[in-house]
Amino acid sequence: MAGRARRAAELDAADELAAVRERFVLDDVVYLDGNSLGALPAHVPGRVEDVVRRQWGELRIRSWDESGWWSAPERIGDRIAPLVGAAAGRIVVGDSTSVNVFKALVAAVRMAGEDRDEILVDASTFPTDGYIAASAARLTGRTLRPVAPAEVPDALSGRTAAVLLNHVDYRTGRLHDLPSLTAAVRAAGAVSVWDLCHSAGALPVGLDEHGVDLAVGCTYKYLNGGPGSPAYLYVRGGLQDRFDSPLPGWNSHAEPFGMRSVFEPAEGAPRGRVGTPDILSMLALEAALDVWDGVRIEAVRAKSLALTDFFLECVAQYAAPGRVETVTPRAHAERGSQIALRCPDAGDVMRRLVARGVVGDFRQPDVLRFGFTPLYVGFADAERAARVLAEVLAEG
Amino acid sequence: MAGRARRAAELDAADELAAVRERFVLDDVVYLDGNSLGALPAHVPGRVEDVVRRQWGELRIRSWDESGWWSAPERIGDRIAPLVGAAAGRIVVGDSTSVNVFKALVAAVRMAGEDRDEILVDASTFPTDGYIAASAARLTGRTLRPVAPAEVPDALSGRTAAVLLNHVDYRTGRLHDLPSLTAAVRAAGAVSVWDLCHSAGALPVGLDEHGVDLAVGCTYKYLNGGPGSPAYLYVRGGLQDRFDSPLPGWNSHAEPFGMRSVFEPAEGAPRGRVGTPDILSMLALEAALDVWDGVRIEAVRAKSLALTDFFLECVAQYAAPGRVETVTPRAHAERGSQIALRCPDAGDVMRRLVARGVVGDFRQPDVLRFGFTPLYVGFADAERAARVLAEVLAEG
Repeated sequence: MAGRARRAAELDAADELAAVRERFVLDDVVYLDGNSLGALPAHVPGRVEDVVRRQWGELRIRSWDESGWWSAPERIGDRIAPLVGAAAGRIVVGDSTSVNVFKALVAAVRMAGEDRDEILVDASTFPTDGYIAASAARLTGRTLRPVAPAEVPDALSGRTAAVLLNHVDYRTGRLHDLPSLTAAVRAAGAVSVWDLCHSAGALPVGLDEHGVDLAVGCTYKYLNGGPGSPAYLYVRGGLQDRFDSPLPGWNSHAEPFGMRSVFEPAEGAPRGRVGTPDILSMLALEAALDVWDGVRIEAVRAKSLALTDFFLECVAQYAAPGRVETVTPRAHAERGSQIALRCPDAGDVMRRLVARGVVGDFRQPDVLRFGFTPLYVGFADAERAARVLAEVLAEG
Repeated sequence: MAGRARRAAELDAADELAAVRERFVLDDVVYLDGNSLGALPAHVPGRVEDVVRRQWGELRIRSWDESGWWSAPERIGDRIAPLVGAAAGRIVVGDSTSVNVFKALVAAVRMAGEDRDEILVDASTFPTDGYIAASAARLTGRTLRPVAPAEVPDALSGRTAAVLLNHVDYRTGRLHDLPSLTAAVRAAGAVSVWDLCHSAGALPVGLDEHGVDLAVGCTYKYLNGGPGSPAYLYVRGGLQDRFDSPLPGWNSHAEPFGMRSVFEPAEGAPRGRVGTPDILSMLALEAALDVWDGVRIEAVRAKSLALTDFFLECVAQYAAPGRVETVTPRAHAERGSQIALRCPDAGDVMRRLVARGVVGDFRQPDVLRFGFTPLYVGFADAERAARVLAEVLAEG
């Protein structure tokens, strides 16, 4: 174990992102649940206090203009854009991921046209995406077909209207091949909708480069926006004029304060807005995005892979053989930024890990999830997590 | 003017709600825009700081259980319930008003059954409600018919599936007759959906008493929840089992952490949830609701009517005859908690009022709106507002 600990110290010393950890509020816990709720950036409390005390408390209604509240959804979208490879003006922030999946999927079906009657959805998707996809299919009179992502190319046909896929599987941590799947969807004449919840902020996404049509994602995992911070919606440049939202609100009207009785959609990203944005959560997110200043997403990806490689090595060395099964793919091209391990007593194991200061999470029925957020998790954390895990597993 | 000012002082001295003003952060501005954004309750900043620094920053993911984040939508719904005359367990908080109108209206159409093909909507509604109603009609294959609220009883028929109405008109401040309109809708076999944005917190609503089927409302006006604080959804007790949401998310699943691929709706209020709730905005709202401790909504209504009566008297006395036209009905039974005045130069008048410390707002094309929030607006404020208004009108 001493060898692994020394190696961790060397890796931490060479880590170009090591100093970014100081931008967060952390303690002596090894926090490997940033793929569920990112840690608090240190400067966020002060910014939120200003929003509450001065912008709301003193300026009150004037803040809609003077504090930039009205334009926050687009402004913050433009902050997220470079992290997922999107040009400015293509992302708007607001609502939950679920609600944005609904907007995106109904809009996708409408773009695809009347003669395409089937929606494909990742069969292993996070439940909400599947429920919303079923609702979108029901309301638009389409059939929903669950398909494993790898089987999507074979499942595509002239009937396919839209395909809803996850970039990284929430449970296994498997990274799906966004460029080739997007190309296949496009070649079939269908519309691609990607859920980036478990990839944005952890690895390069390249939305514009790969020609993704529509995408959604949350901001409270690797983007550290805070509990339930608003989600975002991306619409490809060439499709913005055809984005026909099932949730047209006064915020997405071409002239919001004209109070017109007939809906006329705004141009560009604001077309994805609906109602009044939740300003406190939204401006906490805006502040949180400052931690990305000077951080290259490629460096984040490199560290993420090094961290998860190292964690797997440590687990292999420390834990009794066969005690846990690695669910996450070993190939870098198929791995997100989390490691999922399977063992029959996973729920109990995770409770004991948390009690000993190693926080991951448990997913039914038998999966331990460890999220590695390169902005604030180091190699010594990975070594300690593996060591404590091995201890807990040995007792169980 | 001295007589009116003396009368204001007498009325303020006799006001049983006068002390409630101290629960808010206010300055020497006469703030008559609480019908757009309520003032900041004084204890909210400290509570928000605790949510950010301790609940998010220290407890992190544990707060979903330990800080009660997960149950916040129902818990806060139960705090709003008595203010709108609802029993516990019938209101859930989350998402924007627009999104909740969508849930409610699609669910209403589904409750009404296949043979009812028409949705009636208040022709003078706030734009978003109309846009969302049009979308709900389009997605459910119904026809949307705009009707003035007073004409709803005549417009109802065996074709009517659902009726979307505003309790108080956002522009004119007119209070519609919720009990009789709800009864008429029910008698026709249709489902009623009420938008309470401009009435909740300003007057008794009596949702349960009057048999309202579904209702939605925002929380940032008379409920002082903060900019863009989450909206709420009410479903009548007897209808909860039949509430079939077009936005079924993992938060509304019977077993949210079971991660089931098939949607099975939760019982009761949680059925109206969708995705992860925006915790910062939501817990700011929860804190803000503390200002209602010991406040009777009947006392709020009595003061609201006295305030708006007094303001109208002052305007009549101070302003040149014919310079402004009162849009809001004089009859108490038809008045919400705002006064709308019409004059051709309303936009310019409001700019000058704001510059002189009287904050209302302007609505296209020619309406001045003055919202009277009885928790923190007094009679001296009403007198001063009318006096400054008369000065500004005399210059124009």
